[in-house]
Formats: sequence, C-alpha cells, structure tokens
Amino acid sequence: MNEIQMWENYQQVIAAYNLAFATLSYDDETIAPRDGSSYRNEKIAVLKGEYLSFITSDEIIACIQSLLSKPQSMVEQRKLQLTLKEINQLKAVSKEEYITYVECCRNSSEAWKKAKENNDYSIFKPHLKEVIEQTKHLVSLRNDGLLPYDSLLADYEEGSSMEFYDKFFEKIKTHIVPLVKKLREKNIQYPSLEGVYPIEQQKMIMEKIASYLQFNPSWGYLSQSVHPFSSGFSKNDTRITVRYDESDVTSAIFALIHEIGHATVEHQIGDEYEGSIIHRSITSGIHESQSRFYENYLGKNKSFWKNNYPYLQNMFSNQLNDISLDDFMKAINQVKHQSIRLEADELTYPLHILIRYECEKGLFNGTISIDELEDTFNRLIKEYLGIEVTNPNEGILQDIHWSEGEFGYFPAYALGSSYGAQLLVSMKKEIVVEQALENNQMEVIHEWLKNHIHHDGALYLPLEIIEKACKEPFNVSYYIDYLIDKYSSSLLSE
Amino acid sequence: MNEIQMWENYQQVIAAYNLAFATLSYDDETIAPRDGSSYRNEKIAVLKGEYLSFITSDEIIACIQSLLSKPQSMVEQRKLQLTLKEINQLKAVSKEEYITYVECCRNSSEAWKKAKENNDYSIFKPHLKEVIEQTKHLVSLRNDGLLPYDSLLADYEEGSSMEFYDKFFEKIKTHIVPLVKKLREKNIQYPSLEGVYPIEQQKMIMEKIASYLQFNPSWGYLSQSVHPFSSGFSKNDTRITVRYDESDVTSAIFALIHEIGHATVEHQIGDEYEGSIIHRSITSGIHESQSRFYENYLGKNKSFWKNNYPYLQNMFSNQLNDISLDDFMKAINQVKHQSIRLEADELTYPLHILIRYECEKGLFNGTISIDELEDTFNRLIKEYLGIEVTNPNEGILQDIHWSEGEFGYFPAYALGSSYGAQLLVSMKKEIVVEQALENNQMEVIHEWLKNHIHHDGALYLPLEIIEKACKEPFNVSYYIDYLIDKYSSSLLSE
Repeated sequence: MNEIQMWENYQQVIAAYNLAFATLSYDDETIAPRDGSSYRNEKIAVLKGEYLSFITSDEIIACIQSLLSKPQSMVEQRKLQLTLKEINQLKAVSKEEYITYVECCRNSSEAWKKAKENNDYSIFKPHLKEVIEQTKHLVSLRNDGLLPYDSLLADYEEGSSMEFYDKFFEKIKTHIVPLVKKLREKNIQYPSLEGVYPIEQQKMIMEKIASYLQFNPSWGYLSQSVHPFSSGFSKNDTRITVRYDESDVTSAIFALIHEIGHATVEHQIGDEYEGSIIHRSITSGIHESQSRFYENYLGKNKSFWKNNYPYLQNMFSNQLNDISLDDFMKAINQVKHQSIRLEADELTYPLHILIRYECEKGLFNGTISIDELEDTFNRLIKEYLGIEVTNPNEGILQDIHWSEGEFGYFPAYALGSSYGAQLLVSMKKEIVVEQALENNQMEVIHEWLKNHIHHDGALYLPLEIIEKACKEPFNVSYYIDYLIDKYSSSLLSE
Repeated sequence: MNEIQMWENYQQVIAAYNLAFATLSYDDETIAPRDGSSYRNEKIAVLKGEYLSFITSDEIIACIQSLLSKPQSMVEQRKLQLTLKEINQLKAVSKEEYITYVECCRNSSEAWKKAKENNDYSIFKPHLKEVIEQTKHLVSLRNDGLLPYDSLLADYEEGSSMEFYDKFFEKIKTHIVPLVKKLREKNIQYPSLEGVYPIEQQKMIMEKIASYLQFNPSWGYLSQSVHPFSSGFSKNDTRITVRYDESDVTSAIFALIHEIGHATVEHQIGDEYEGSIIHRSITSGIHESQSRFYENYLGKNKSFWKNNYPYLQNMFSNQLNDISLDDFMKAINQVKHQSIRLEADELTYPLHILIRYECEKGLFNGTISIDELEDTFNRLIKEYLGIEVTNPNEGILQDIHWSEGEFGYFPAYALGSSYGAQLLVSMKKEIVVEQALENNQMEVIHEWLKNHIHHDGALYLPLEIIEKACKEPFNVSYYIDYLIDKYSSSLLSE
C-alpha cells in the first residue's frame, strides 16, 4: 500500500471512530437509561483512549509528515494539517490521562443533569471543579505557546484569541449594555402569549416548521433532550433535539429552527468532503453563524411567520385567537429581562455570552476561583442584564457546556450571530430573502448559504469564509447596527 | 503492567467496542435516517475491522495463552477460552474480507427493508445470495474441522450441531405436524379480537405491562423498529423494540413480553460478569428460552391476564366489551394456520422454525441453491403448516435474520422454547407461578430465573445450565408433552 492509500485508510478509521462517538453521545443525551451511565461513561472513555492510540501512532504521523513534505492539492494539504493539529493536541496527553479526562467530563455531565433536576449546584460543583482542573492540566501539556484560554478559544474558533474576543466584546458592551438598560427601565409591555400549549400539538407544529425549512426525515431526525443540540453524523444523517415547555409555545420552535440551521450546514457540505476533517472541523463560530441565522434572521422575520403563523394560530386557536400576526411578531421579538441564555432575545443574547466569556477567561487566567464562580456569574448577570438570580437553575446550572468540558465554546455563539448579521446584508444584495420566506422557497436561501458557507466546510479559516462570502473583512459593526436598528425602534414606539 | 492487568485492559477495550457496535446497531434499526445508511454501513464495517485487528493482535493472543498455561479460577479460565475462541474465528479471516463481509450484511439488511416495503423479493435476493456466499466462504476459512452448518449452529448455541438438532426436530415433526394437521382440519372457531386498536392507546398498555413485568425505565428503554428485537448494552442498559399493528391488539404486547424476557436476562447477570464475555456470550438458546418463557409460559397464562385483562378491556372498551377473560384466553391461545413466524401460536411455532432449519441446512450442505430457496421455503410451509404463501412478505421476506447474515440462529428459538418448557416444570416444583402472576409478584419469578439461569451468564454450557436448573438432563419430551397437553384439549372441546 502506498502512503496515499494508507492516508485514505487512516481517514476512514478516524471517521468510523467519530461516527461511533457521535452515536454514543447522541444516544446518551436522548434515550439511554440512566442506570447504565457509569458503565457507558467508562467504556466511551476507553474507546476514546483507543482512538488516541490510533491517531497518535508513529505510522500515521510519519505518513502525514511525508505527504506534507511533498506537493499536495490545497484541499489535501488542509486535511493533513488539520489532522496533524488534532494529533499534536492528543499526543501531548498520555492515554491514561485522556481516558480519565473523558470519564471525568462524562460523569460531570451526568452530575449536572442531577443537579438541574434538584436545582442544587452543590451536586455539580465538585465535578465542575474537577473538570476545570483537568482541562487546565491538559491544556498546559499542549506546549503550543498559547495562554490556556487562548488555546481553548482556538479549539472552537480557529484563529481566535482573547485579544480578538476582547475587542469584539468591548464593542458589544459599549453599545448593547446601555441599550438593554434603557429598555429595561422603559419597561415596555408586550402582547402576552401566556397559556398552556400541549406538547403533542407542539410536536405537530415542529413537523410543519421542519418541513417548511426543508429539513427532511430521510436525512435528519428530531428527538428530545434536556438541552437542545445538533449532531452531524454524516451529510445525510443529522440529528437534532429540542425540549418542550408546555407554558411556552415558541421555546421549542426556536430551538428547532436553530438546530435545523446546524443540520443544514452538515447536510450541505460538499460530497467530496463528507466524513473528512474538512467536514468535522467546521468551527463553532461558523456553525453558530448558521444556527443563529436560521433562528433569528429567518425565524424572527415577519415573512417567515406570514407563512407559518396561520397554522400555529389554528393549532392553538383558544390560546392565540386574539393575537394578530403583528402582536405575535412583537411578542417573539420582545426584549426579555431574564437570566436564561437559551430563552434570551437577540439583543440581550450577546450579553449572556459576554458573562460566560468573562467567567471562563477569569477561570483560566486565574483571576476567578471555582469557589467564586457562582457569585461572579450572578454578579455579572446583575451588572449586564439587571437581573437578580434567585436559584441555580436560573444561574450557574442553566447550560450544559461546562459540565462537558466545553470551555471556549460560548463566545462562538455571539461571534456567530455577528457573522450572521454581516452575511444577511450580503445575502440581501443577491436574493430577496423575504420573498423566499413568504413563497415557501427555502431552497433559494439554502442555495446561497451552500455556495457561500456550507459547501466548503472547514477548507478555509472562519474569517476567510466570511470575507469570501461578504466580499469584505469581518466587521462587528453589522451586528451592532442590526441590533441597534431593530431594538432602538422599541424605544421610540411608545 | 503484568499480564493480569493487561488482560483486564484488553477486556475493557473489547467491551468498549461492543458497546459501540450495540449502540450503532440499535440506532440504525430504530431512528437513523435512511439516506445516511451507506455511510454508516461503510464506517461500521471499518470499525469492526479495527476491532478485528485489536482482538487478533499477537500481544493479546500471547497474553491469553500465557494465562491459560497457568492455574486460573474456573471463571477466569472460561473467559479466556471464550475469548480465544472468538479470536480464532476472526483470525481465520483477513481484515479486508471481514470488512467486506460486514458491509455486505449491512447493505443486505437495508435491501431487505426496501424489499419488504415493496413486497418484492427480487430487491433482496441478490444481496441474500451475496451474504450466503460470503458466509460460506468465511466459515470455510475457520478450519475448525466442522461442517459449515455445524460451525454456524455452534456460533449461536454452544455445543449444538446438526446431529443434535436433527434429533430434536425429528421429535417435533413426529408429534406436532400431525396435531397441527388435525386441528387445521377441525377448523375450530375462536372468539375474534378483530377491530381497530389505535397505537397511542396500545402504547399506554405497553407501559402498564412493562411495569407489571418490572421492566424499569431506569435500566431499560422501549422503542419501535420494523422487526422487534432486544439489545443488551450492559446490565443496567437494555434496549427493546416492538412494532405496532393497529388491527392486532396483542401483536405488540407479546413482542413486548418476549423482549422483556431477553432484557431481564441481561439485567440479572451477576455484577461480577457485567461487560465480560461471560455476559456477552449467553447463547441464543438460553436467551430465547427466557424470552419465549415470558412470552408463552407467563404471557399466555390466565393468571397473567387476570391481572392485566381488565386494564386492556377498559382501554379498548368498545372493541373488547363483549370479550370475557375466558374468550380472550381462547383467542390468544388459538392455533393460527398462517405463514408468519412472528405471529405464530405456540403449537405451530416450532414448525416455522423447522422450515427455516431445513432451508438453512440445505443451503449450507449444498442441497438447496439460492435460486431454489423461495420455492423450498414455500413448499415446506405448505407441507408442515398447510398454508399457501401468496406473496413474499408472508413468505421468504418475513424475517430479518438472513439479511444480517444470521444463519443458524433460528433453531435456537425452538430449542429455547423446549428449554423453557422443562424449566417451567422445575420452577413449579419450587414456586407457585400462578400465585406470583396473580399477585403482582414478578420478583418471585425473576428471582428463581436469576438464581437458576440469569446470574451466571455463559459461565456454563447451555445443556449444563439446563441440567443444573432442572436437576436432570435436557429432555425435549417436556416441550412435546406441554404442547400436546395444551392443544389436544382443543380437539376434545368441540
């Protein structure tokens, strides 16, 4: 076998392991019986250890290095380099340490679920402490010349750093915090969607909206989990979850639209990249730029609801009888002064992320200890959002990410929203978004996103992708302008 | 690391791979989007190839052989020997051949589903041919001195062979075929349960019966699939599926009871064996002895329904209003002269298996070609059951097993039923089964089965397990007597 064939085979095995991990993880988050979790966690960690042994083997490294020393196509070179980067990170850790870390994260995630059920941070805190310490240790082994949090940020958004995000969030802070404060003080009254919305009926709405967004059961599966998420198994096998709230008619809907954004990225990858690291390494910022694009720039657009609201209203005729489309639009676009990120409106959303960014940065730079974390978290919520957190489920326990060792992911949500705002402006120069939404022509929007973002996966750096799609460099002002434009009108309207 | 620690580690990795395969397979059979199947099949095959490489490595073999050359506990020795047996079978095959075989079986199973949807054998036949040829080839490589079909039979039921099964089925044929014929000619009329039974309500019944059988969501999950099955991920993580038929109120119920039998075997394994080959190698005959025990010896017992029928009748009050418990018992115990194994009554069931046994035997002994298979299958159905098969879904396409390369499994269903009949006699000497069923005391029955069958998994050979539990050797007469006793009364009753 020559080295090109060997490289092909290695990639097949890497993809096979990753499919197994995606499946094990999806199963665990959705249906797996709880009593089996310690067995599962232990075995998944062992299998991840096998993966580490496989991918860091001398033969693979030699093969990659040899191929990299010869002329390669741009695509092949990118694949080789991304794989080598993954290898170097894993190689820095011993197999035993890695297995311990994986198991620690999995047990921590289990503890988080229990803590959430009991609204009791003390169940989760020791696990979180362990995860943070182990993450710090593992990152310190990388020897990549980066500060720990810089290294973590770059895991989720290639090319990013604290320097990059500091500037980004500075703008957010300067422009959005005062606007949120003004709106809070103004205490605008919005139409209320309060009521009881039976879950079985909500599920029927899900089907309608999934179909409208051309999310097809032949390549996508919708399920339920404590925390909504998306997982791309392959181009034609995407899995998403939502959670239902009987007292909130739109919570599951917007989760659905968000996750379909993720799923569509996976589905529209070029055939030639399927299963490769070009597919697997799409950054969180790019991914969230799409999910947040669907959720907000499409899903909170009146044209979207011109199409879908009649159906919703009809399904819940008692509850929504007196709510006109305009009222509904006001209700779903209201600024909600509350502490839960997942339920946040577009305007306060980046502040929820800013809070997490500052917490993570402090944790990894050593200025916040784990014992101070909850207080810091709640203090920042008070400072930026004006909300007193009264219980852990509305504060420190609300998100799953840290329990799974995902430090550095959160900023990508805000960055993705910002990418999205800029993409929207570019898209609107080429297609009539509202017309597509009103006329059931999601394929027009899909096509644009496929050509400009989805098709090439992680072939380019995130900032390159945005620059290519928008024909100018990334600029946070599009996002700030969008938010100010959309929400300062509420200040004038009364 | 000494060799005992190494052996422990190897077993951990083997268990981890097996958990991944169980999860991938369960996912595929239940929820996985169809368009992703070729990617999944390819990657699962690749991962199975990695498993083969791992388990057949020189280091593992050397470690096992070294341990086997020293004194070991009986348990350890059994683990080592069973593992070595698995290794020897896999080692006979090259990794490439194995990957090709796995992928061939997975694609064949996909083709079977399509064929079934279209009631068209021609979609499946070329795949089946390929699976049979590849299975023959792989078995020929084993070099175990056995005839191909003997080797396959022993895969599913350790210690069994054509000689063993020929004798077994000869008794079945002698006693049961004429009885079925007599009953068919007598054309007894049974109370009819015909009607429409909405699936949502059937699902509520499932919950009730699962709870009655002490199948607990904390360690077991119930889902749906085309062909009901059970998969034990670990002691506290069992998965079962059923399929619903709106026109048949008991089809899903008996599938449920059957699969809970399987799940309970997994759940009641001794803690010390969890995840080990002692757990994983429980034979099909022993497994089916339990599932068929639950389905028939418990589930078709009047005491079972004294407890559960009022609930069923209440749930379907329109449909079952005029059906008394006695009528219901007659209906569920009727002899059904039809061609579908999964819907068969206890009496015709072993004949359905006999038909498959003769087909498999002929295929692997070379007396039946794949081109003759469908005709042979239908001819035997006519001969033993007196039924004309009029379309493939009611004939050759009805079962999933062959599509997955499972040749040699079917006989275990009949053998398991026979084990079960003997176990029932022994159990009744020690506990009052009817009383336990009537008084919601499934734990009494569980406990007996745990002590006599479940706890030790595959520590002993199947015939040893039965002999230990029954305090006498396996004897098919218990099964024949049970069937004759139960069903010849119908001959007298009119």
